[in-house]
Amino acid sequence: MSDTDFSLQLRNALGPDVVLTEAAAIEPWLSDWRGLYRGHAQAVLRPRTTAEVAQALALCQAAGVPVVPRGGNTGLCGGATPDGGAANVVLSLDRMTAVRSIDTIANTMVAEAGCILGNLRRAAQEAGRLLPLSLAAEDSSQIGGNLATNAGGVNVVRYGMARELVLGIEAVLPTGEIFNGLRTLRKDNTGYDLKQLLIGSEGTLGVITAVALRLYPRTDVRSVVLAAVESPKQALELYELLFQRCGARLQAYEFFTGDCVDLVLAHAQGVQEPFAQRYPAYVLMELADTSDEAALNQLLETVVGEALERELCLDAAVSASLAQLQALWKLREEISEAQRADGPHLKHDVSLPIERIPEFMVTAEARLRELDPSVRPFIFGHFGDGNLHYNLSRPAGAPREWAAEKGAAVTDIVLDEVHRYGGSISAEHGIGQLKREHFLHTKDPLELRLMRDIKRVFDPAGIMNPGKLL
Amino acid sequence: MSDTDFSLQLRNALGPDVVLTEAAAIEPWLSDWRGLYRGHAQAVLRPRTTAEVAQALALCQAAGVPVVPRGGNTGLCGGATPDGGAANVVLSLDRMTAVRSIDTIANTMVAEAGCILGNLRRAAQEAGRLLPLSLAAEDSSQIGGNLATNAGGVNVVRYGMARELVLGIEAVLPTGEIFNGLRTLRKDNTGYDLKQLLIGSEGTLGVITAVALRLYPRTDVRSVVLAAVESPKQALELYELLFQRCGARLQAYEFFTGDCVDLVLAHAQGVQEPFAQRYPAYVLMELADTSDEAALNQLLETVVGEALERELCLDAAVSASLAQLQALWKLREEISEAQRADGPHLKHDVSLPIERIPEFMVTAEARLRELDPSVRPFIFGHFGDGNLHYNLSRPAGAPREWAAEKGAAVTDIVLDEVHRYGGSISAEHGIGQLKREHFLHTKDPLELRLMRDIKRVFDPAGIMNPGKLL
Repeated sequence: MSDTDFSLQLRNALGPDVVLTEAAAIEPWLSDWRGLYRGHAQAVLRPRTTAEVAQALALCQAAGVPVVPRGGNTGLCGGATPDGGAANVVLSLDRMTAVRSIDTIANTMVAEAGCILGNLRRAAQEAGRLLPLSLAAEDSSQIGGNLATNAGGVNVVRYGMARELVLGIEAVLPTGEIFNGLRTLRKDNTGYDLKQLLIGSEGTLGVITAVALRLYPRTDVRSVVLAAVESPKQALELYELLFQRCGARLQAYEFFTGDCVDLVLAHAQGVQEPFAQRYPAYVLMELADTSDEAALNQLLETVVGEALERELCLDAAVSASLAQLQALWKLREEISEAQRADGPHLKHDVSLPIERIPEFMVTAEARLRELDPSVRPFIFGHFGDGNLHYNLSRPAGAPREWAAEKGAAVTDIVLDEVHRYGGSISAEHGIGQLKREHFLHTKDPLELRLMRDIKRVFDPAGIMNPGKLL
Repeated sequence: MSDTDFSLQLRNALGPDVVLTEAAAIEPWLSDWRGLYRGHAQAVLRPRTTAEVAQALALCQAAGVPVVPRGGNTGLCGGATPDGGAANVVLSLDRMTAVRSIDTIANTMVAEAGCILGNLRRAAQEAGRLLPLSLAAEDSSQIGGNLATNAGGVNVVRYGMARELVLGIEAVLPTGEIFNGLRTLRKDNTGYDLKQLLIGSEGTLGVITAVALRLYPRTDVRSVVLAAVESPKQALELYELLFQRCGARLQAYEFFTGDCVDLVLAHAQGVQEPFAQRYPAYVLMELADTSDEAALNQLLETVVGEALERELCLDAAVSASLAQLQALWKLREEISEAQRADGPHLKHDVSLPIERIPEFMVTAEARLRELDPSVRPFIFGHFGDGNLHYNLSRPAGAPREWAAEKGAAVTDIVLDEVHRYGGSISAEHGIGQLKREHFLHTKDPLELRLMRDIKRVFDPAGIMNPGKLL
């Protein structure tokens, strides 16, 4: 069967509105948003219902046509971009945007996979609840993609990864069968928890079509502290104190180096030097509670006082208003954009056993400086989760090609050091195309074998998202 | 090969100290603690190391010998009791009791599978941290079994099931291969999360030998409220208020009927009538925080005041001392034992979408009363999780055989009603032997097929815990 014949078959089954084949129409679906990856497809499908997704997948499996599920296209690893195969079909969830229910007694939300995360967060907020998953791309990313990649973000230290928020999943398997796991139960010990396989599977096992999520109480009382620290080691000791004293109030514990602040001040608008002097590194902590601002501020004052007295930080600034809170967050939030503005650079989303971060940072930087003494590291991340965005920019004055030329050698060093300390080469972004080779070379062979066997259980014809992950 | 030959082979490989075969020696390992199940075995193994577990399983697989992993034997479903097959080998983890590490910066604990849960809780407490998994059998149950059954308990409403506390697992597969997943990383998006399959698999995929768990801040400030409610519906409205106002402070939200209080007062020592009059039902709420008892009590006073004013409860008693707190908890904790003292009864550990509990309770009781108008329901449970222990005792004056005679009909009604409302026939206890038939008849055929295929991936020779779950 030629590609054209198969597109026609899809169109006959699903209607012309669902099946795009014209070059101009499918063009936007062939690349990732960073422009790192570009592929081919014979058609883009935009189904409106789970039944249409099932119909599409059954046809694709029967014809042996590869399927690339697509969410908001905000992934950083090329996981939702087709490879070079001409037969690919891209399946976009962007039309499946219904919020099926929000329940403030059960504290659950059921939504279709194409819902924009930010919209779901606002819907929960309006209902008096919190959907805690929060990340930079939340106003573009879709909840189905968030689950397919087990997204992280800034509130993981308190609420866990996307996985921890999932009560149920509805998905279509490549066989066209519907996995009816859209339960809202908090407890259900009836056999293997199959939805856990779909979470983080990056579209290689099936297509998530709807999700049931846990909601939390709104935490309307918030306070932020920016603490200056002399080292990652001090940042960890400070973390120990905050964790112990503040309990579940600690919603974010973000780290960034003084170099990151330089970069942000150079490139971003409306940010201010936080202290009278520059310090080696900073920690941004957010505390939040359901009520009683006075008690929260009192606690914060006590804990920060203790931190200064025990010399667990060098200096500290506490937000006294929402404007100040936002200004402090801006220092952290603008780092990625400032680094982009600075030019091409190398990103590494890694995680480490938290207690080993200080050693890792010393030895990784030493090896990188052997390679290039003038490399500029901009290191920041979700420190409370052991998650570093270990990013490197070219030396001052170096040509823009530096990142492309040195990339492989730099990344090899970073990931090698991550392994040495028992870390993970992908903390929250996933594998996709970007880290596939590294993943396949370094993952435990037994785990790889089990994953491949499980992939065959779900996707016997091997049509789901080829060239990604496995 | 005869059984005797294989036992000899095990003894040659593992040493006489590890392999028990004498009838008197293996006798205690052949039944469950409730005395509902009894089986056979040619040997009981008590390995001391992961390597010995691996050696044992490799030999069993080569000989096609069934293996029954055994933890603390506190399960309620016969999952750790061998079936009638003479060739069975019981593999006990009771000698693997090392706590490998407790880290108060990373907030992790790594422990071998045979550690008693209560010991791990105390070890965490001494280190200034909380291991929140807490259940009636915690001073007998082993952590490996807790994970293999995805245990629940009284703190799930705040901290989630055992699954949510797991960072990593080391396990031996039936092939004798070691699954080296004992990572302490908070974030690790590198392929399918295989450990999730082992959690809750009831020993059918492999043997958990060690676990890495999350620890939480100690919550040394505690307060308990006992509220009287007129109905499950009112209990849910009260839950909505508490959840919203108290956030993460709400650590337990337990429900029991007035009949349960009668039962406890009749059979338990040292318990007192909580109010001047008997009410239809009660809710026991525990609030806890890292510090500031005054603030917690103030919050509680405000919330209870609001609940009374809005008529979300009929009466309320707040603990003013540790002794009062324990006395209130005793009302809840003694229910199981009181019901045992009352005589044979029927237990059902079910869960429901929380918002549907009131309807379920009405229709289930109506159908049971059609079967037997004098049946005595004693209903209690972890209401905040939608989890009911829906237990039934014989009518007053009925012979002790009532439970055995009516059991099947009663259970059919209860589980049928659970299905009708989209609930689960096993909330936290698992399937084991007890619910296997119901499970196989009611679970979605697609999910059953996937589970069986996954079982074959992990256990190609089918030696792991036969006759349980699948």
